[in-house]
Amino acid sequence: MNAQNCLEILRSIKDVAFATIDRDGKPQVRMIDMMLIEEGKLFFCTARGKDFYQELCDLPEAAITGMNEKYQMVRFNAKVKKLSDQKYWIDRIFEENPSMKDVYPGDSRYILEPFVMDEGTLEFFDLGVSPIHRESFALKMPVKEKGFLISDACIGCGTCQRNCPQQAIIKGTPYVIKQEQCLHCGLCFEKCPVKAIFRRGLSR
Amino acid sequence: MNAQNCLEILRSIKDVAFATIDRDGKPQVRMIDMMLIEEGKLFFCTARGKDFYQELCDLPEAAITGMNEKYQMVRFNAKVKKLSDQKYWIDRIFEENPSMKDVYPGDSRYILEPFVMDEGTLEFFDLGVSPIHRESFALKMPVKEKGFLISDACIGCGTCQRNCPQQAIIKGTPYVIKQEQCLHCGLCFEKCPVKAIFRRGLSR
Repeated sequence: MNAQNCLEILRSIKDVAFATIDRDGKPQVRMIDMMLIEEGKLFFCTARGKDFYQELCDLPEAAITGMNEKYQMVRFNAKVKKLSDQKYWIDRIFEENPSMKDVYPGDSRYILEPFVMDEGTLEFFDLGVSPIHRESFALKMPVKEKGFLISDACIGCGTCQRNCPQQAIIKGTPYVIKQEQCLHCGLCFEKCPVKAIFRRGLSR
Repeated sequence: MNAQNCLEILRSIKDVAFATIDRDGKPQVRMIDMMLIEEGKLFFCTARGKDFYQELCDLPEAAITGMNEKYQMVRFNAKVKKLSDQKYWIDRIFEENPSMKDVYPGDSRYILEPFVMDEGTLEFFDLGVSPIHRESFALKMPVKEKGFLISDACIGCGTCQRNCPQQAIIKGTPYVIKQEQCLHCGLCFEKCPVKAIFRRGLSR
């Protein structure tokens, strides 16, 4: 699994959930087709009349997610960039997605504007395997670490390991969280008697 | 179709996309199970360790969407309310969703907190019929009108009707947009020679 595989899953799901922030500072989400894929790039389009278009112009930040039939989920948090060569990209999108002609016949297609996402962080989350499996990747920026870490303040009591719902903690000095199996539920963090476990990542 | 039918679609899809805003003011989205439904109420839960939980505590606003196998899409923009009787609601959720026990066995379930959404606006969008069909509803607040409206400044030239990709405009004085079939693409708005068409809704 790598960043490109994650983009390919989103393109194969096609209809992914696409979140933005509106002018009232509230979250918005709708299903959007992922129209094209290139190495490290995912393309989509939307019509200039839509609230979605206005939101992207105001704050070009996207959070995208989709789950395929194997219960593999991908999250992509990306910067959104409007493409300048509108006609070229809309024509290419319609060529590779012929059903678009039913929705926007003839020249009405040029009410659409093309966008690309090629910079951001990716999370892959496989719920179809047991234990669950997660990995993080990034495009043109560092990977963002999330979840929890057990520090050297660990006294080795094993409370975290006994409480973990996914058996994702290994005995050691200190004990270690298997990050790829962690739900980020925070039970170890709450139960540690010496507060040796801390949250990773500066922002939420 | 009514508001309750929309909630029922979200519960039946179960894994819906749930958008929030993080502490950096950026959108976030992930798949969340809709766990229970009552008249006008949709319930879910999440673990106190998750970024998602922190985001809901910071800004209890949700945007949710899901599409079922009939290509019927629902969007729900709602206030998120944390429920005080944690044990009662988590036990009820686990009773009605037995597979939760595999993820959070034994008492580990109480790392989860229950939430309800019973106030907000709903959009129903049927992509499985031609022409497409959309309707808006609301729970405990007025319906939010979106899209475009043709004003009395209309000169009856028919430019909007000829350009509409979905034949969603009816001849008249003034011409009228069939709101339930409108894509909100904005082509009529852009093409109207006398600027007789305006955008509905104060915010985006």
